[in-house]
Amino acid sequence: MILLFSPRSDLAIEAAALFNKTENDIKSIEGIEYKTEKNDNYTVTRVEVLNKKGEQAIGKQIGTYVTVECPKIRENDDEAFEAVSTVLAGELEKMLNLKKYHTVLAVGLGNWNVTPDALGPKVVSKLVVTRHLFEYIPEKIPDTLQALCAVSPGVLGITGIETGEIVKGICDKVKPDVVIAIDALASRKIDRISTSIQLSDTGITPGSGIGNKRRGLNEDYLGVKVIAIGVPTVVDAATVANDTIEILCENIKKSENLDKDIGKALEITDNEFRYPLIKEVLNPFVGDLIVTPKEVDEIIDDVSKIIANGINRAVHKDTENLYNA
Amino acid sequence: MILLFSPRSDLAIEAAALFNKTENDIKSIEGIEYKTEKNDNYTVTRVEVLNKKGEQAIGKQIGTYVTVECPKIRENDDEAFEAVSTVLAGELEKMLNLKKYHTVLAVGLGNWNVTPDALGPKVVSKLVVTRHLFEYIPEKIPDTLQALCAVSPGVLGITGIETGEIVKGICDKVKPDVVIAIDALASRKIDRISTSIQLSDTGITPGSGIGNKRRGLNEDYLGVKVIAIGVPTVVDAATVANDTIEILCENIKKSENLDKDIGKALEITDNEFRYPLIKEVLNPFVGDLIVTPKEVDEIIDDVSKIIANGINRAVHKDTENLYNA
Amino acid sequence: MILLFSPRSDLAIEAAALFNKTENDIKSIEGIEYKTEKNDNYTVTRVEVLNKKGEQAIGKQIGTYVTVECPKIRENDDEAFEAVSTVLAGELEKMLNLKKYHTVLAVGLGNWNVTPDALGPKVVSKLVVTRHLFEYIPEKIPDTLQALCAVSPGVLGITGIETGEIVKGICDKVKPDVVIAIDALASRKIDRISTSIQLSDTGITPGSGIGNKRRGLNEDYLGVKVIAIGVPTVVDAATVANDTIEILCENIKKSENLDKDIGKALEITDNEFRYPLIKEVLNPFVGDLIVTPKEVDEIIDDVSKIIANGINRAVHKDTENLYNA
Amino acid sequence: MILLFSPRSDLAIEAAALFNKTENDIKSIEGIEYKTEKNDNYTVTRVEVLNKKGEQAIGKQIGTYVTVECPKIRENDDEAFEAVSTVLAGELEKMLNLKKYHTVLAVGLGNWNVTPDALGPKVVSKLVVTRHLFEYIPEKIPDTLQALCAVSPGVLGITGIETGEIVKGICDKVKPDVVIAIDALASRKIDRISTSIQLSDTGITPGSGIGNKRRGLNEDYLGVKVIAIGVPTVVDAATVANDTIEILCENIKKSENLDKDIGKALEITDNEFRYPLIKEVLNPFVGDLIVTPKEVDEIIDDVSKIIANGINRAVHKDTENLYNA
Repeated sequence: MILLFSPRSDLAIEAAALFNKTENDIKSIEGIEYKTEKNDNYTVTRVEVLNKKGEQAIGKQIGTYVTVECPKIRENDDEAFEAVSTVLAGELEKMLNLKKYHTVLAVGLGNWNVTPDALGPKVVSKLVVTRHLFEYIPEKIPDTLQALCAVSPGVLGITGIETGEIVKGICDKVKPDVVIAIDALASRKIDRISTSIQLSDTGITPGSGIGNKRRGLNEDYLGVKVIAIGVPTVVDAATVANDTIEILCENIKKSENLDKDIGKALEITDNEFRYPLIKEVLNPFVGDLIVTPKEVDEIIDDVSKIIANGINRAVHKDTENLYNA
Repeated sequence: MILLFSPRSDLAIEAAALFNKTENDIKSIEGIEYKTEKNDNYTVTRVEVLNKKGEQAIGKQIGTYVTVECPKIRENDDEAFEAVSTVLAGELEKMLNLKKYHTVLAVGLGNWNVTPDALGPKVVSKLVVTRHLFEYIPEKIPDTLQALCAVSPGVLGITGIETGEIVKGICDKVKPDVVIAIDALASRKIDRISTSIQLSDTGITPGSGIGNKRRGLNEDYLGVKVIAIGVPTVVDAATVANDTIEILCENIKKSENLDKDIGKALEITDNEFRYPLIKEVLNPFVGDLIVTPKEVDEIIDDVSKIIANGINRAVHKDTENLYNA
Repeated sequence: MILLFSPRSDLAIEAAALFNKTENDIKSIEGIEYKTEKNDNYTVTRVEVLNKKGEQAIGKQIGTYVTVECPKIRENDDEAFEAVSTVLAGELEKMLNLKKYHTVLAVGLGNWNVTPDALGPKVVSKLVVTRHLFEYIPEKIPDTLQALCAVSPGVLGITGIETGEIVKGICDKVKPDVVIAIDALASRKIDRISTSIQLSDTGITPGSGIGNKRRGLNEDYLGVKVIAIGVPTVVDAATVANDTIEILCENIKKSENLDKDIGKALEITDNEFRYPLIKEVLNPFVGDLIVTPKEVDEIIDDVSKIIANGINRAVHKDTENLYNA
Repeated sequence: MILLFSPRSDLAIEAAALFNKTENDIKSIEGIEYKTEKNDNYTVTRVEVLNKKGEQAIGKQIGTYVTVECPKIRENDDEAFEAVSTVLAGELEKMLNLKKYHTVLAVGLGNWNVTPDALGPKVVSKLVVTRHLFEYIPEKIPDTLQALCAVSPGVLGITGIETGEIVKGICDKVKPDVVIAIDALASRKIDRISTSIQLSDTGITPGSGIGNKRRGLNEDYLGVKVIAIGVPTVVDAATVANDTIEILCENIKKSENLDKDIGKALEITDNEFRYPLIKEVLNPFVGDLIVTPKEVDEIIDDVSKIIANGINRAVHKDTENLYNA
């Protein structure tokens, strides 16, 4: 049996059942709540998967998925940076729901040697880490700070250890009240690269992301609530090839004098033929080719500042002194 | 007028007239000489553009283009590394044709902040630079060394100065006998990424490569012979989309019961429709999306060692002590 | 003949004749004008060397030397950062004295592979480079921008070419109206590391700094005015050893019952004995040992932002949009 | 009470009782065995602390301390590199005493953002990690490989978590048979920087090294044997100042006509005066100033290759294919 190609996405708003549908269509899906808020700088989309029916409908676990989209991030717009940091901090604060003396463990997933996968470690390097101060100089800590600690565990190919195991081991020692896991994602759409940020309270399930993370970073395994923050930084080259075929087929189908047989041929193309075609184009790399903007290094830098800023503000109350962190 | 899409390539062996042709077909092109040598580790292809007819036929300047192809480089095969370094050193030595006390200036082109464009600067950082020793401690220099100096001039967006101007200014001071320019290239074929190395004695003409280099690094402008060494490190995302369309069209045309009208529709697709389609797929990035293997950072490291090794051996006679440079 | 040790400094305010003197003493030196302004955040010291007498007195060329000292930089004080950037921009603007359509070439001196010497290249990487826009899209450039271009030429050991030659070659092509050269300096005093910034309109004379720059970056050689910006980032280990001896000797001399002979012995120590002693302590490295704070990487980052900010504001009129550059 | 200055060292061969003594003197210390082997390339010194008496005599725990010294490492001598890798691999193999299917966890201690402290993480990045292969593709693994996994846990200031806790958490999951901890050390002597490598089977006790590691990486805490590999990469600036005073005092004492009173004054200097003097010289940094060779970046690179090579060979039997790892 040949595995048919299925475009890879880690975003709830790109789930098959939601993709390319109108908002009204989506609202009629049972077990799903879907809300959108827009302003000049960004769009916030809230997808709530309420029950098993919802899970089956869109293939995402029960939980809340909030996506902030802001195309202006790519234009280096300072006002947009600030606006997105603020909305991100607000949404994250709600999900974290911290009490005094709670401890937060931030985990930067991904491979620091692979530019578009280095988002997590970059964010972690910009956090205002404070947990050790509570232990060593508690009397000097302002009331506005919470105990935040942070690690970048690496990926399986670098450590020889499943990321889940490393994080579980650290959790068992640190006993955080909540974990924030930051990861680079794959998207189905090129225009989401670096401009969408997804928060969810479901943690990370095995196989997502572009690294190797088999054991889930989720409450089931770690025994503590996990908030996942993800940003699409690449699109699979296979997705680009697939989208090209799709658009081409649609264009051909629209041509007036289309013979029924060809129409049928194109239907077939939608299924059996597609994967071998894509494989032929991307040979010999197929699984490991990624599409990124040329300036991906700079993009990852910018978006990691926004996310670090959002986390710093959400965790520590007094934001004034943390803006430059 | 809309500019139709033309797949971008900087390799002579990928010139339109040579691409996908048999060797016999190519040999019949007037003004072109084409030779191939194979062994277990690599294939060397020598394209000589002999005259204006040859120039017109393949759209490359009169000169010699030598391409070493070695798919094993990607497999981290030590023996292949050594074999490619050796053949590269030999071919380069022939092109350089150095006499005693000649001075060589190596120029690492490209943007060191963009991983797949950083090949040139990486190679330059691994060269055994000696020119200053000839000036300051000539009595201590072994007979086997030549005067080698090396710069990485950056790209227009970083310096605000055309790369050609910077190199011309340095040449006017240093007065080298020959310039070696190392650059990352774009290829038409994914399987050439990091596995093909092209040498040519024509220098670099404006518009090639993935940086901005308007004034040519060639004998015309610099007043000194320029050997160009290039390695494909990316494929344009537009090329991937284009190839997908091509392969799809060919497959549809092969289907038995193809109506003439559709056949015609697909022909059209080859021309007018193609670029808007590609643009739709790659929106909003079209011009700046690149396809690279995920592990591009490591690949650039490996291939830059091979090239630096080849240059060090070709310039300095005594290779023994330079292997680890 | 043995070269006696002379503590190395590149700062005018540390010149032998000024070091450890009262302001009144200094004001009596012929050919020198010396002024100090203080506020909460910084001290600005202006040393004017007026004539040959002044030159001989302090061993610095005729010209203006402005030093901004701000110990709070080391404490990561945002207000101090802003204050120093502003005063730096103001002083630099006066020295530059730009007219419309003037072109500025910034040169980042030093070795990017040696952390405390990488200040120049780091500053250059943060400048808002615009010269190419004037050439390619002049109609789109706001009135508030000047033509700024920037290079990091490397050091002799990396390129095999004297830095002066590279810069001279580029100047001959670019024909800037003024050059700004940024360099890491050595200081005599540890508390100046990263907290003092020196501006001078005399350029850089051979042998200064911690790199190898034999041909001067000055108006004599380049044919264009050169503003030098320098920041002490290291102290020679030999200076630390020397200072230890000095302080020890002074302490011993102060002891009441000091025998004349020993007094004499210590005098001798001030001269002949000192260098061999220092050499014994620092063997086998003597010339190349540097003293830096542990967190030198971070310190260089911070101070390079301040200087880049100062240059961007001084060169381009409209500062609003450049703060985040 | 003023804390008197005590020169910091992490090397057993620099322990107070051994420092500047003849071999015969050392051999008479009870509870210590001390052996030296020399050849053209290196000296191996083996210090065995046999019992509590030995512990008290030199202030180091019961165990074996092997130091390989090779000044030629600094001269970039290939033969010396190879010789030191080989002797290191042999000594390490003895200490590891691995059986088939044993798992080794390598831990790279230190702060990757501080060049001279980044040795551990650099070594770890060059190891041939294999543990995951045993789990996922056991049938493809050659008999000559052992299960090696590796992490760089960061330092307290970066993570907010004690390094010991992180490593303990990971050990609890991975259950290695032995841990190898690699760390940058402080030395008392400048000529040991990067040229001495110390192996010991006692692990790492709190407070050593230049990071913050309060909970020990040793068998007591981790429950598994810990081999420590350390290389001096810095000397405290305070040690340099202290040594200067010492050498100066000795020189003065040797002068013929030394008055008894002064002799006494200098004795005093050995004690009460010394620390305030040093503080005066190094103000305002005293605790955090380090002395390093200018080219410390390159030195750390070189020595991390030697150590990684040694570990790879000691852990995996078949060295042939691992040399370039």
